[in-house]
Order: sequence, then structure tokens, then C-alpha cells
Amino acid sequence: MTVKEKISQLRDLGAATVYEAQGAKGALDHGMKPIDPTVRMAGPALTVDARPADNLILHHAVLKAKPGDILVVDAKGFMEAGPWGDVLTIQAMKLGIAGLVVNGCVRDANLIIGLGFPVFCRGLSIKGTGKNQPGKVNVPITIGDVVIRPGDIVVGDRDGLVVVAQEEVDSAIASSLAREEKEMQQRKAIEAGTSNTAELLNLTETLKRFGLV
Amino acid sequence: MTVKEKISQLRDLGAATVYEAQGAKGALDHGMKPIDPTVRMAGPALTVDARPADNLILHHAVLKAKPGDILVVDAKGFMEAGPWGDVLTIQAMKLGIAGLVVNGCVRDANLIIGLGFPVFCRGLSIKGTGKNQPGKVNVPITIGDVVIRPGDIVVGDRDGLVVVAQEEVDSAIASSLAREEKEMQQRKAIEAGTSNTAELLNLTETLKRFGLV
Amino acid sequence: MTVKEKISQLRDLGAATVYEAQGAKGALDHGMKPIDPTVRMAGPALTVDARPADNLILHHAVLKAKPGDILVVDAKGFMEAGPWGDVLTIQAMKLGIAGLVVNGCVRDANLIIGLGFPVFCRGLSIKGTGKNQPGKVNVPITIGDVVIRPGDIVVGDRDGLVVVAQEEVDSAIASSLAREEKEMQQRKAIEAGTSNTAELLNLTETLKRFGLV
Amino acid sequence: MTVKEKISQLRDLGAATVYEAQGAKGALDHGMKPIDPTVRMAGPALTVDARPADNLILHHAVLKAKPGDILVVDAKGFMEAGPWGDVLTIQAMKLGIAGLVVNGCVRDANLIIGLGFPVFCRGLSIKGTGKNQPGKVNVPITIGDVVIRPGDIVVGDRDGLVVVAQEEVDSAIASSLAREEKEMQQRKAIEAGTSNTAELLNLTETLKRFGLV
Amino acid sequence: MTVKEKISQLRDLGAATVYEAQGAKGALDHGMKPIDPTVRMAGPALTVDARPADNLILHHAVLKAKPGDILVVDAKGFMEAGPWGDVLTIQAMKLGIAGLVVNGCVRDANLIIGLGFPVFCRGLSIKGTGKNQPGKVNVPITIGDVVIRPGDIVVGDRDGLVVVAQEEVDSAIASSLAREEKEMQQRKAIEAGTSNTAELLNLTETLKRFGLV
Amino acid sequence: MTVKEKISQLRDLGAATVYEAQGAKGALDHGMKPIDPTVRMAGPALTVDARPADNLILHHAVLKAKPGDILVVDAKGFMEAGPWGDVLTIQAMKLGIAGLVVNGCVRDANLIIGLGFPVFCRGLSIKGTGKNQPGKVNVPITIGDVVIRPGDIVVGDRDGLVVVAQEEVDSAIASSLAREEKEMQQRKAIEAGTSNTAELLNLTETLKRFGLV
Repeated sequence: MTVKEKISQLRDLGAATVYEAQGAKGALDHGMKPIDPTVRMAGPALTVDARPADNLILHHAVLKAKPGDILVVDAKGFMEAGPWGDVLTIQAMKLGIAGLVVNGCVRDANLIIGLGFPVFCRGLSIKGTGKNQPGKVNVPITIGDVVIRPGDIVVGDRDGLVVVAQEEVDSAIASSLAREEKEMQQRKAIEAGTSNTAELLNLTETLKRFGLV
Repeated sequence: MTVKEKISQLRDLGAATVYEAQGAKGALDHGMKPIDPTVRMAGPALTVDARPADNLILHHAVLKAKPGDILVVDAKGFMEAGPWGDVLTIQAMKLGIAGLVVNGCVRDANLIIGLGFPVFCRGLSIKGTGKNQPGKVNVPITIGDVVIRPGDIVVGDRDGLVVVAQEEVDSAIASSLAREEKEMQQRKAIEAGTSNTAELLNLTETLKRFGLV
Repeated sequence: MTVKEKISQLRDLGAATVYEAQGAKGALDHGMKPIDPTVRMAGPALTVDARPADNLILHHAVLKAKPGDILVVDAKGFMEAGPWGDVLTIQAMKLGIAGLVVNGCVRDANLIIGLGFPVFCRGLSIKGTGKNQPGKVNVPITIGDVVIRPGDIVVGDRDGLVVVAQEEVDSAIASSLAREEKEMQQRKAIEAGTSNTAELLNLTETLKRFGLV
Repeated sequence: MTVKEKISQLRDLGAATVYEAQGAKGALDHGMKPIDPTVRMAGPALTVDARPADNLILHHAVLKAKPGDILVVDAKGFMEAGPWGDVLTIQAMKLGIAGLVVNGCVRDANLIIGLGFPVFCRGLSIKGTGKNQPGKVNVPITIGDVVIRPGDIVVGDRDGLVVVAQEEVDSAIASSLAREEKEMQQRKAIEAGTSNTAELLNLTETLKRFGLV
Repeated sequence: MTVKEKISQLRDLGAATVYEAQGAKGALDHGMKPIDPTVRMAGPALTVDARPADNLILHHAVLKAKPGDILVVDAKGFMEAGPWGDVLTIQAMKLGIAGLVVNGCVRDANLIIGLGFPVFCRGLSIKGTGKNQPGKVNVPITIGDVVIRPGDIVVGDRDGLVVVAQEEVDSAIASSLAREEKEMQQRKAIEAGTSNTAELLNLTETLKRFGLV
Repeated sequence: MTVKEKISQLRDLGAATVYEAQGAKGALDHGMKPIDPTVRMAGPALTVDARPADNLILHHAVLKAKPGDILVVDAKGFMEAGPWGDVLTIQAMKLGIAGLVVNGCVRDANLIIGLGFPVFCRGLSIKGTGKNQPGKVNVPITIGDVVIRPGDIVVGDRDGLVVVAQEEVDSAIASSLAREEKEMQQRKAIEAGTSNTAELLNLTETLKRFGLV
């Protein structure tokens, strides 16, 4: 399986499944969500350490990206600025960038959604950003209590975002598929009425200990 | 009119109308909203007092539910865990549960919306939950400054949620219908241009007292 | 160009473009958003200084509005009341009011969206409002750190809201059109691959100063 | 023991101890705190259901209070108004009121602290309140997910507030004293080095189950 | 009375009294508070429009100040940076600056409090600020829904901050003194037991209208 | 210099100085503050990955600590539980633990402050915690976007908290001392009036570029 196929598979598996399958780690906080809830996205992170309300470093980072990359920007959670908009979206799509994650806001949401470019962020703000501050590209950053290193795979959908360490992609896919297979069996048993979730998840002993069975 | 018909009627009347009609009480806070804004839901509450970031008691509660019940879960407002997902949704639908209210988050939103299962909560989080903590089923709980007792009727739509005390269902329906009838007359008068809201709501005296007329 | 045409043009240009074009000013905070993200709206403000959880003054203000006006209401950001609902919407549409901005919540969202009446606010709440408190109409108000005077033009879409001073409408349109033309050229150059955003925005010198080129 | 002595004992035991001793219930949310962290307070609740940003009903409630009562006011959590200040404090102290709890803000904090009048609230706001809205006195109210009925005993200190049901005062005192005695023994054992918290609280089995011992 | 004496008088009257006396206007939101609650401060505003997480313009503004000025800085409410610290405090005190208001955070709080320099802000953050962004000095700014123009008088104490328009200083003092005198009479009547707050504030009619008397 | 002396020196230098001196990194977010603002604390981290509203793992961790250690607990930012109180404080002091950092709340604040035990957290909550959930000790954790590894040095005071990597302690001290020396010279120059902050920090060129000089 090529790297591209693996990334595609992670995207299809989805954030919640991959998160659980890799050992309940790597999920960004609940405030990071897609501006279009129907998008699905996966790709290696090109990380950006930005300053709040400034997008100079974004203009630099976009040109460093390889096709398929996802820009992952720590804009420090500042909500009253939209450091990403239509022109950067067009530039990013031209270069084959696969999506954007911003710890902060974006603007021009109608156009971005219309173009089908996946964007995950905390909200929308039209307020302007300067082009005066330095930043760093391809350094480890932290968003939502998750450390994201350059090249880590970012998976996003309506539920939110999860990060898979580059060296754990194969095991994450394997355990995600195993988890999907297991859940498929569970769903069949539930729908057939032959078992229920408490039994399927072996919760009886714990329920007994609390006097609930 | 059967209980089922009454519940159906409350669902059609909608949360805002029922809230006003029963005397401006029973509305949960504005943060509790449907993950699919187009759903409408009504049913008797099966209440669950849960611990944050743990869904053991949910697996227990689901099996206690009767068809048509709505699970109403106080997960203490914790936003960084999604104690409800796809498997529990399938189990709940298999058992005829009519919907879910969680003071907290859920995950697997795409699948839940696809299945048409009504879920009201504070947000989406893929972060994991344990299965280690006790809880209580069918005890009074409090969400958003509203006490919800087992069997109270929960009504939800895009506007949010309202709770109708079991013993006040008939009067709530009656006054909701009266309110709808009255508003229908008001709308007709407004659309015909024969009267306006200030007149229809008898606000002239109050406006005068403040020097506004 | 008539005033009506100018307003229509501002609506089509959109909040983000107008904000930038008029010098990065006039944008309301990121929490003020349309309840239907697809709407676009523009019109002169009929300002209302209201008290939290009370809509007496709204009933007064609605009758003062001229066709095309947008009611801009400072309800003090209180989230646990919905001072605007279906009856006021019908009244407003009957009178030709073009939209509503509320620093607070509204209710009856399904009906309002169905009627196509543009509403921008902080959220949805079904909780009731009294009709007991005074207020002021057509006085300067402040929402989201922006002063809004009666007659200022309010422009709103998915990105949020921007306010254009009455006396700056012509210059805002002119600079917005110039900005659109310029961005069109930039997009063409980007799509043709003849230039990139860093070059088009003359960022090279600044990037050099920070050692990024 | 007189009622007065019981209340005095609850105040000395403190909010955290009483909360745990009565079965981990009755604690208001963490946002409700004393404006002077050194105060300690206890007394029966005279409940007030107020509207946000209005203190008409407070002026009514104060005159209904008996010496030793604590005014417990649901002002709906609105932060941009201070419905209680110096004059009401003087009136309350004149009448022997023992303290104030407000789901909202107060003002004149320097004077209130100087007079030694215990006030628990969410913050300080000098913004004005009207005297135009109705309210209710001595009805059950809900603050921080806790239902407070008239006559329930409110206990407050630096840690926050806990409510004891009127009919459970004796058992709450008894179990609080038992808890204090037990903790005293634990502290002695800890300080003597003869035992540690894990042993004293019988946590070994649970720790073993998780592989921690 | 000299300007200096007037300012001193406003400081002694305090934020809450001045706010009410000038017609319930000019109060900043409840989140703006002194880092040392015992300070009292008043003086003309030297306004600063800053960018979040950058203090270049503060270094410029400090040198523009006249003795007695209060620096009033809109740092856009960003909480994860402390653009003011010990060195700027020493510089400000050397120049006779009377205090600081920041819509944001500061650091070096122990030293600032030790020096007795009044600082009002939203919190404490040690996180660094750049010195790369432009800003404006002595332009109207908006904090907490209040417009502050250069030269407006800022009054602050434990309750928070209020702004008095330069041209309304005399009337604000006069009405504050009148209000203090009136409240003094009210307190006397309350303490003597000859009247109560409801009577003194003429609330009987309103209370009757709501059936409360 | 012994390790103990180094830690003592970092405590005296304080969080803000150490943060800046080590390159503007390692500062926890502004919400993490001491419950007694006058304390100062430094020591190596014994990290704890806990579940919200459960303190089983804390009872385990405390017994793993060496004298001088600081317990650094990620309780997931949950505010409605106080997993640390008086008994654990006594146990911790008996064992020579130097302080506590909790991403969450604590209770028994009066007693903890009285004993002089340094505690940094997000707030106070008396709400109970279970003893049912697993956790991890001495694993890397993340609080406020900062990764904390076992043995990293935590420095805290009124301004907040900063983390120094174990291997960078010497360089952090050296650069902090250099920074203090430099600031001392700057203060002297400022107080003598021989220079000002803009000159001392070489800001003239940047100010000129923005037309501010």
C-alpha cells in the first residue's frame, strides 16, 4: 500500500475510529471543527508556529508545502482575527495542499466551502491580520493538548481532528480496521437481537461491582 | 388521545411554544442543541446521572429503556469526552429509544445523523471515555437549571429543549394549542395590516409609562 | 447609483471584503453570526438599546422602521433569553424590514429560516422575555467593540457582520471594487502559476528581515 | 442544640466537609465564590427568583427576611449588572440578614467587605440595574445545578457554597462530625508515619485492579 | 477646583458612584479588574490601539504620556500574552504615569503591586510579546462596549472601571456628590429604622403593579 | 551548585524571568494560578495523567514522590470537582512534596493556605471525586499547550507557571541571571533619566518603519 493509499484509508476510517484504535490519544480539543461539517480530510502536517492576528508566516509556509500536505497552524487560539482567506485558499489549492487546521479563525468561508477546501478551526472572523511578525515552519506545535510534529498524519471530519504519529500509521490503520471489523460484528449482533452492548463489551462484572446488575 | 399521540403533538408544537404555553418554565440552557438542527423529538425521560468521561452507566441505562423513551444524561457538562457513539446509537435504535440528551458531548456524528437518531448535546468530542465509574438511573437530575424527573416529557428542536412535567402534559398541550390559535390570529391581523404587535400584545400603556408613545 | 443599489452592492461584496476595503474597521466580534449561514444581508441600521431578557422596546422599534432597515439591537449579550421570535418576524417582514442583528439570542429559528428573514445573533434560546423595561431607539450603540450609529450600513453574511459609516458608503464601495479587481488579478496570476501570494503581496522584504527567505 | 447553634456548627464545619458528609450533594458550581475569601457564613435561605439586571424584587425580599436569613438570589447568571450594593447592604445588616448569594454580580465591594457582610457571587459589576421587573420570593430556585428551597441551610466559605436540606440538618451535622473525627485520626496516622492515605482509604484493591500496585 | 483636584475627587468617589451619577454609562465590562484590589486610581486617558501579543506601541506610548496620565490600552482581549511588565512599570512611574488599563494581561504582578502602580486588566500572563507590530496612540478605542477618547477621565477601584467624558467631569462630580449626600441620608434613615429601601426609592407603586405589596 | 540550590535559584528568579530567559517557552496558560498569590515554588515534576473527577491515581502518585518533588496533575481541565484536599495535603507535606499543580480544581483552600503548601490550579471546587479510575504516573503530560516530562523543573509564582527542561536548567539559570543583570542596568538608566525603554530595547528603527518616530 502506498503512503497515499494509507492516508486515504485513514481519511475513510475517520477521526473517532482512528483515535480509539491507536489507544485513545491524539485527539484535538472539541473546539476545533470543520467549517463545512461534510468534509473529510487526511494528510501529513506541515506545522506552522504563528503569532496571533498575523499571517506573514502563512504566506511563507504555503510555498514550503508539498502536494497532499495539510497546513497545521497554531495561531494561539485568538478568535478576533481571520488569518486565512480566499487568496491563500486559491494559492494552497494551486499547490495541491490538502487542507488547513488553524488554532484560531478564518474568513471567506462561503468561498472556501464553495471550492471544497477542507478547513478546521475555532470559528469565523473577518477581522484583519497584519503581516509583520515572524513565525516558524516545521517545528513541533501544540494544539488542544496534542503535540503535532511535522509529518504527523492529521485526520479530520465532522467529529473533529486526530493526529497519528508518522511512525504509527501502519499500526493505526491495522488496529482501526480490526476495530471496524469488531464493531461490525457487534452491530450485527445488536441488530439481530442476539446480544447487547453491555454483554458485547464485557461490562457485567463492573456493573455488578457497583450493584447495577 | 393516547399518550403516544400527546407526545407526538408536543413534538409538533415545538420547544418554544410549549415553553411559553406552560408558563415560561422548563427550558434547558442555550448551550444544549441538536447535532442535526432539522430534527424534532419528544418522549418521556429515562434519566441518567453519569460521571464525566465515563459511559458505563449509559450501557446499563440503554437496557432499562422502553420504546419511545428519551435518554437524558447528566455527564456534568464535561466537553473533552464523547461518551455516546455509533454502537450505542444502534443499540438504542434497536430498542426503540426515541432520542438522547447529553449534558456533554457525543461522537460519530456523521453516522448518528445518517441514521436519523435525534441527539441533543453541547458539542462533539471524539475523546475517549472509561467504563469504570458508577452512576444512577431514573433519579431526578438537573441540566441547565432545570430539574428533570424520570417520566417527564422532553421536547426538542432547533431552538433547544423544554421539559414538561408528567402531570402537566394535558394542560401544556391545551395551552400550547390556545397559544398557537392566538398567534395565528395575530399573524393574520399583522399580515392584513389591521393591527400591529404592540396593539395585539397590549403594550401601549407600558410604552406610555416610559414615554415611548 | 441609488442608495438601494449601493446597499445591494455592499451585500454582494460581502462583509470580509468591505471590512478590509474600508481600512480594517467596523467588524463585529466573531460571536455574531447568521442563524442560517447561507443568508446575505445589507441595510441601514435602526439601532435599539434594549435591556437583557426584555423585548418591550423591540415592539416599539419595529414600528419605527422604514422598509429596508435592519434592526440592530444591543440586548447586552445575555444568552438565556430569546427576545425575538415568530410574531415579531412576521411583523417585521410585513413592514419591509430587511433583517435583524441581536447582541443576544433569538427563538423560533425554524420558522425564521423558513421565511428567509436574515437574523444575526449569538445563539438560540427559547427562554422568555418580559415586556417591562424601557429602552432607546436610534441612539448610538456598541456591539463587539464597534459603535453603530442610526443609519450606518450593516453588511452580513456567513463570515459575520461589518458596519459602514453612512458618510463612507461611496468610498467603501469604491475601495471594495478596487480590492476585488486586484484580488481577481492575483487569483489569475496564482492559477496561471506566474506568481505567488508572497510576491503578489510584496512580503519578501519582511520575510528576509526575519531570516525566512 | 438550638437551631442557631446548629447553623453555627455547620458554618464552622465548612462547605467541603458538609458536602462530603451529606453524601456528595448540594454543592454550587465553582463559579460562585465569596468576594472576601476569609468570610464564613451559614443560615436559612430566603430564596429570590429575579430577572437579570433588575433589583426591584430584591428590595421587596429584603423586607421579608428574618434575622439570620441568607438571601439566595437567582439573577440568571448575568454578569454585566450589579443588582446589589451599599444601600441594600446597610438595609440587610440593619434587619439582621446573615449574608447574600447572587447568581450574578454585585458592586460596592470595598464597602461590603469593610462592613463584614458575607457576599457570594460570580464577580463584580458596577453596571446599573433597573427597578422595573417582577420576581418571586420564597419559591424553589436552581443555581449551579442545585435546587434551593426556602429554608434550606446555605453554608459558604473560601471553597464555595453547599446547601443542606432543612430536614437533613441534624444528619448532616452528625456525619460531618464523624467525618471530621475520622479525618483527624487519618491526619494523626499520616503525621506519625504509621499509615498513608492509600491504606487509610482502602484503595489497595482498586489500585491492584489497574496494575498500579 | 483645579483639574488635579477634580480627578482626585473622582478617585475618592469611586467607580460605582460616578457611573450611576453620570447616568449609568461608561462602565467597562466586569472582566476588567485591578491586580491589587485595594488600589484606587483616576486620571486622563492616553489611549493606545495595540495589536495582540505585541508591545512595540506601548514603548512608544509611554514616552508620549504626561504626568498623571493613565495608559488605556486595547490589546484586543488576548489572554495568552503579558505585554506589560516590570521595566515598563519603572519607566511609567519615572514619567509620573498614574496607572494602566489593558484589555488583555500583564506580568510581573508581584513587582507591580509592590511598587504600588495601579494596573487594571483581564488577568496575568507571563507569555512573551513581540515588538514587531504597529499601533496608534491617542485615537478613540473601545473596551468593554465603552468608547474611550484621549483625555477622557478613567476612574478605577475594586469594583472595576468607569470612563467620564472630558466635558462632563464637572457634572459627574456634582451629581456624584449629590448622590452621595442622598445615600448618606438614606443610610441614616435605614440605620435609624425610620424608613426602608423600598420606601426611600419610591418602589411601592411598581411593587403594587406586580402584586408584590 | 547543588541541584537543590539551582532549584532554589529558579524559584527566586520567578516564572516570568525564567520564561523569557530560556527563549519565551514553557509558560502554562493564564488560567493556571496559585490559590495563595504570595507563594513561590520550584521543583522537579512528578507527572500524573489523571481522569476528570477522580483522585485514585493521586493517592498512588503521592507515595511515589521524593522530597522536593512537585506533583503536576493533568485532571483534564474539569472544573466541577476538587480532587485534592486537606488529607492529601497533609500526606504530601509529610513526604516532603514541595507543591502541586492541577489542571482542574482543588478544595479545602483555607487549610491548604494555612499550612503554606503551594497549590496552582484553575479554581476551587468542593465537588466530590471518585476513586474508581486508572491513571498514569511519570509519563509526559500536556497542560496549557506545554509538554511536561517527569523531572522537568516547574517554577511558579503569582504570575503563573513555567517549565524548564531538566537538561536546560543550567542554561536557564545563566540566561536568567544575565537577563536580571541587564534589566537592573536598564532600571538604573531609567530611574536616573539617562535613557528610556525605547532606546534601551533598540526599538527606534522599528518605530521609524511604522512612522512612529
